[in-house]
Amino acid sequence: MHAIDRDPLLLTPGPLTTSLRTKQAMLHDWGSWDAAFNHITAEVCRQLVDIVHGAETHVCVPLQGSGTFSVEAALGTLVPRGAKVLVPNNGAYCARILKILKILGREAVELPTAENCPFDPLAIESALMADPDISHVALVHCETGTGILNPLPEIAAAVARQQRGLIIDAMSSFAAIEIDVRTMPFDALIAASGKCLEGVPGIGFVIAARDKLAASAGNSHSLAMDLHDQWIYMQKTTQWRFTPPTHVVVALHEALAQYQEEGGQAVRGARYRANCAALTQGMARLGLLPYVAAQFQAPIIVTFHAPQHAAYDFQTFYQGVRERGFILYPGKLTRIETFRVGCIGALTPQDLVHVVDAIAATLAAMGVMGARGATDAMAVV
Amino acid sequence: MHAIDRDPLLLTPGPLTTSLRTKQAMLHDWGSWDAAFNHITAEVCRQLVDIVHGAETHVCVPLQGSGTFSVEAALGTLVPRGAKVLVPNNGAYCARILKILKILGREAVELPTAENCPFDPLAIESALMADPDISHVALVHCETGTGILNPLPEIAAAVARQQRGLIIDAMSSFAAIEIDVRTMPFDALIAASGKCLEGVPGIGFVIAARDKLAASAGNSHSLAMDLHDQWIYMQKTTQWRFTPPTHVVVALHEALAQYQEEGGQAVRGARYRANCAALTQGMARLGLLPYVAAQFQAPIIVTFHAPQHAAYDFQTFYQGVRERGFILYPGKLTRIETFRVGCIGALTPQDLVHVVDAIAATLAAMGVMGARGATDAMAVV
Ligand SMILES: Cc1ncc(COP(=O)(O)O)c(C=O)c1O
Ligand SMILES: Cc1ncc(COP(=O)(O)O)c(C=O)c1O
Repeated sequence: MHAIDRDPLLLTPGPLTTSLRTKQAMLHDWGSWDAAFNHITAEVCRQLVDIVHGAETHVCVPLQGSGTFSVEAALGTLVPRGAKVLVPNNGAYCARILKILKILGREAVELPTAENCPFDPLAIESALMADPDISHVALVHCETGTGILNPLPEIAAAVARQQRGLIIDAMSSFAAIEIDVRTMPFDALIAASGKCLEGVPGIGFVIAARDKLAASAGNSHSLAMDLHDQWIYMQKTTQWRFTPPTHVVVALHEALAQYQEEGGQAVRGARYRANCAALTQGMARLGLLPYVAAQFQAPIIVTFHAPQHAAYDFQTFYQGVRERGFILYPGKLTRIETFRVGCIGALTPQDLVHVVDAIAATLAAMGVMGARGATDAMAVV
Repeated sequence: MHAIDRDPLLLTPGPLTTSLRTKQAMLHDWGSWDAAFNHITAEVCRQLVDIVHGAETHVCVPLQGSGTFSVEAALGTLVPRGAKVLVPNNGAYCARILKILKILGREAVELPTAENCPFDPLAIESALMADPDISHVALVHCETGTGILNPLPEIAAAVARQQRGLIIDAMSSFAAIEIDVRTMPFDALIAASGKCLEGVPGIGFVIAARDKLAASAGNSHSLAMDLHDQWIYMQKTTQWRFTPPTHVVVALHEALAQYQEEGGQAVRGARYRANCAALTQGMARLGLLPYVAAQFQAPIIVTFHAPQHAAYDFQTFYQGVRERGFILYPGKLTRIETFRVGCIGALTPQDLVHVVDAIAATLAAMGVMGARGATDAMAVV
């Protein structure tokens, strides 16, 4: 085995492998009060709103911290105390929304769904019709815990018909999968710098309906996570309310330039689909099959059944693939042994072919698989 | 005037000018699940605790976001609902603590102090004796709004005598001014990556007494800012609970290496004192005097009275100094016109001499000051 003289590639749902150009943007220091920096913030926000065609109706409020901070901020700011939220649940990030609502003291109604099934828009609409007290639906678009894509267009239409508010956790889908607020109306959408925009992690953002945000003063349970306060202050001063992670912001600005140069959402989405196809086809040849059915799979991250072989354990497998230059991600399912491979970041289909090679070589070295591919011992469940 | 072909130096209280070496650490991507990254996090935390000699008693919990997020997290996690907090107030960051406590629904007792005076430890002790219901004191160490240093050793002793908990916002003093938990006991201290450690902004951290933190489960008003949950998860997994800003963390690690190489707190503090002396002496020659009396001045940031001259306005002044290669900071006082100049970051006394030159040249160009120095029109209030 040859020693790897480059950084390992990240096959993870973020932090991702980013371009050198994006990282090099961090080689400068910026004053957070300075107009040059605040111009960059404004540019970033404008571009983020444009990605969902929201310039007429929506505004972008960036927030320091990881994506979860922005999810909590959106729920705390936009869901008034006393409101009731429907949470369709088919995975870990849906469950996190339920947990946040509980801590925030906002009433939640869970709509449980099997982890390998997308939400049923009709079931959501029925739940809304049955309970007029439900004011909002909180929806995870791509449930990164499994890699499943929930049908946003149909759900947005159902929620709009029932005249409730829709809050979308689009953390791992934004900028790669089409979201158009003109045809898929929402009150708020949450995403972050370090996912399909291919920036580095450190900020999240909420794209919120201007009228809903304007009406949300005083809702928040927090000072730091009060999006209304953050928005008002930014409008007044052009500055962030509290110290922004300046280097992360300029890296996102540079990542957005590359996103536009690549061709925007359609082209980025196509690259990720090609990555995902190269991955799943190569893995199928090894006898390693996805947990999620192909028609429900988002081209973001794929959950694979672990080989059912006595010689397999995730730590050894992870370490072997890492030594070959690739960082994988553990599974998030509790009842089935799985691992995950991301398709997003500054990666091409060729990289995914190499990942499959590294996986095959590792499994062979572990004695889980013959050197030439899948063995009888590979269960495909 | 010569064109500046380098990035402007930041004479601000953070983000700061950092070393190229610190920024270059961000030229790599790291997996947040990977042991190599988690080892870096652990190393950073260990070093941060050691700076206050807390290894025996205290633990470090890092948190995504700006410093304010960590202040709010510390108050929300360590002050139980129903507790009562004394907040000595001599500036903007003290006022922010009061605001946070109000939003969190924790009772606060304000102890107002003039903005140009440090707190009186006796007044704090009297307030504690007078009200046994006060469980905690929340103290800003260096009040960055003015640059005043509050007497931490005496206050910590008073709070300990009265057997209350002390929570210190040491955002702008940590690592530059001596803090020793063995002689200045505290429940928690809050600081951040982008201040005197000379990292880039993006994470804060709380150094908390292990026993107090262990007893704080369920206090927090927030999921994202629950330090107890963050700590338990990190202990169990070695990982951050939610995606960390990996590049910011590795930059802090690199900044800490340089901090140790420079000689730690004593040497860094001495450099900042030399910076502050070069600044105030140079400014005095221009007739520009500090707002805070010398014996109360922290060597972190200096508030100067603005020239009292009809031709002076801050925007023109700021822009002129910026064109000469330096970024200043506006004042934070509402009743007096001031501006601020930071002494922290990867700066030497020679840089501060150059700032003074740029200030003199700008004021001369504005017609506020004769080309050779102070004019009669310079008021020193
Ligand atoms: C769908 C979804 N929601 C929320 C999050 C949480 O983001 P973070 O880890 O940045 O807090 C993630 C992270 O991968 C995600 O994929
Ligand atoms: C004393 C003090 N507290 C709190 C803060 C807030 O930190 P941030 O702006 O990172 O939220 C600062 C920032 O300068 C500070 O100096």
